[in-house]
Amino acid sequence: MAVYTHLGAEDLADLIAHYDVGTLVSAKGIAEGVSNSNWLIETDRGRFILTMYERRIDLDDLPFFLGLLDHLSAASCPVPRTIHDRDGQASRILDGKAVALIEFLPGVSVERPTPSQARAVGAALAQVHLASRDFPLERTDPLDPSFNWHTLERCGEQALASIDPELPGTIDLARRIAENWPADLDRAIIHADLFPDNVLMLGNRVSGMIDFYFACSGAMAYDLAVTHAAWSFDPRGADYRPRVGAALIEGYESVRPLTSRERQGMSLLAQGACLRFTASRAEDWLDTPSDALVTRKDPMDFARRWQFYAEAGDAPFAARD
Amino acid sequence: MAVYTHLGAEDLADLIAHYDVGTLVSAKGIAEGVSNSNWLIETDRGRFILTMYERRIDLDDLPFFLGLLDHLSAASCPVPRTIHDRDGQASRILDGKAVALIEFLPGVSVERPTPSQARAVGAALAQVHLASRDFPLERTDPLDPSFNWHTLERCGEQALASIDPELPGTIDLARRIAENWPADLDRAIIHADLFPDNVLMLGNRVSGMIDFYFACSGAMAYDLAVTHAAWSFDPRGADYRPRVGAALIEGYESVRPLTSRERQGMSLLAQGACLRFTASRAEDWLDTPSDALVTRKDPMDFARRWQFYAEAGDAPFAARD
Repeated sequence: MAVYTHLGAEDLADLIAHYDVGTLVSAKGIAEGVSNSNWLIETDRGRFILTMYERRIDLDDLPFFLGLLDHLSAASCPVPRTIHDRDGQASRILDGKAVALIEFLPGVSVERPTPSQARAVGAALAQVHLASRDFPLERTDPLDPSFNWHTLERCGEQALASIDPELPGTIDLARRIAENWPADLDRAIIHADLFPDNVLMLGNRVSGMIDFYFACSGAMAYDLAVTHAAWSFDPRGADYRPRVGAALIEGYESVRPLTSRERQGMSLLAQGACLRFTASRAEDWLDTPSDALVTRKDPMDFARRWQFYAEAGDAPFAARD
Repeated sequence: MAVYTHLGAEDLADLIAHYDVGTLVSAKGIAEGVSNSNWLIETDRGRFILTMYERRIDLDDLPFFLGLLDHLSAASCPVPRTIHDRDGQASRILDGKAVALIEFLPGVSVERPTPSQARAVGAALAQVHLASRDFPLERTDPLDPSFNWHTLERCGEQALASIDPELPGTIDLARRIAENWPADLDRAIIHADLFPDNVLMLGNRVSGMIDFYFACSGAMAYDLAVTHAAWSFDPRGADYRPRVGAALIEGYESVRPLTSRERQGMSLLAQGACLRFTASRAEDWLDTPSDALVTRKDPMDFARRWQFYAEAGDAPFAARD
């Protein structure tokens, strides 16, 4: 959540001149994104987000990520389109790093979503899934259930216990979830990280879905499970908000009803989603010195969510009468 | 250069409702300011900067800082005005911290100023000086020459030598400059930190002067000396850019000619300005672990500038024929 690279006005003006977007009027480094630097750029013709890809992103994936934005945007999904340069390219190299200019979308990220907002997000997610099915590129999910299990194993029981005594137990849970992962669910391109801070809203309307840098080919129901886990709890994962969770599913199904196989799998998919974030946060926690300026995200916030889903079974995902 | 506090959309919308500025449409934390958090806020009626005062700022000084913006803005200086809330207050308390809503001004900060840009900055600085003379509040300069000398003394010869072998010598220089500081120069409210990143420009025009949080009562010629040292060198302070330096002085004098006492004092004032930044950077350097994520600013960048001014004497400030 920082700007890792300094770009002066002259650098930015030179860059902007490669695009047919007018003259630079304002540029502010913005505190968004964890794997890249971002600037809110204003020209005399509009506003844009300039993204510089700093780390974690495999540049070979950029055509997938940027092409996906254009594909979804063309299908009227609330997703920012990529601005192509005068040579038609979606990305350029600046200071040895890839940069892309992306449409600015209005809206703010909510912290305490209402059921109406969750319903809108569910519908928007389903819209993305349907629109992505004829996207020609593929990307394997690097964070699949086996990977999450192995991540927790790699952390080790002792290190996990140093974070929380409950955490070593997740290694075995993750193994069992990976072994029982439902196969052959309907697939599309999934966002895989649709937390509230990746959704821009104007009131109850989704004005933008952003940060598709975990997007990959995957089971659509798994994406819904990730989104359910991300939206339907207080931030610590201690309290499930049943009306928000139900509204999210209802909104999704208003656009794309779940199949019976998907509905049967939802509880396990949600448990897997929780362990995916437990695993990555545990690894980051152990990699980050406790006195670092970066705020570490507590893996237990998602271990608690896992507990909820394990106990609740199919109830949160039951078909409505 | 970070956003130290997280404010969700709901917090921001609640705050904005206390002002007559319309409805929140977008909010981005921006990477500006070292002593506060800032958000670029958009409503359906305009754009604003929301500043939250985190540290280093004495809240008793806020009426001075915010009143100064309104005073200068009313005098047509390119300075953002403060937006007052529905009760007429220039600041509010949010989460126990003071916040202010400030006009957004377009423009970008240049890195390699041209003589034309330096001329415009000089003229804008003089305009601020003239306009501030009937501002009713005062603020003592906490970073006066004695303070800088004592800061370097407090760092200690050994610690200074650990940064650079040239640095211990600045203690004695700072003492001599403090002892010879020209008294009775014409005073006004001075910006005292007018680096290029505190000036927004559109081409050769100054569209905004920002970050007045070092502003204080002081000698106008000293403010010009600070600005000269900040604008007329490459960032490392190795190369003086004579055309830029001369244009800055010329621009200043086009609005407010220097008195002969001021002109005689400029070389010493500029040396003092260099030691002011050498001292604060040395102290920050020694206070910041070398592995911190924060980039430390090298005190030698201003020790080198001091060297230039000490050797050049009055030449950079000579009256033009």
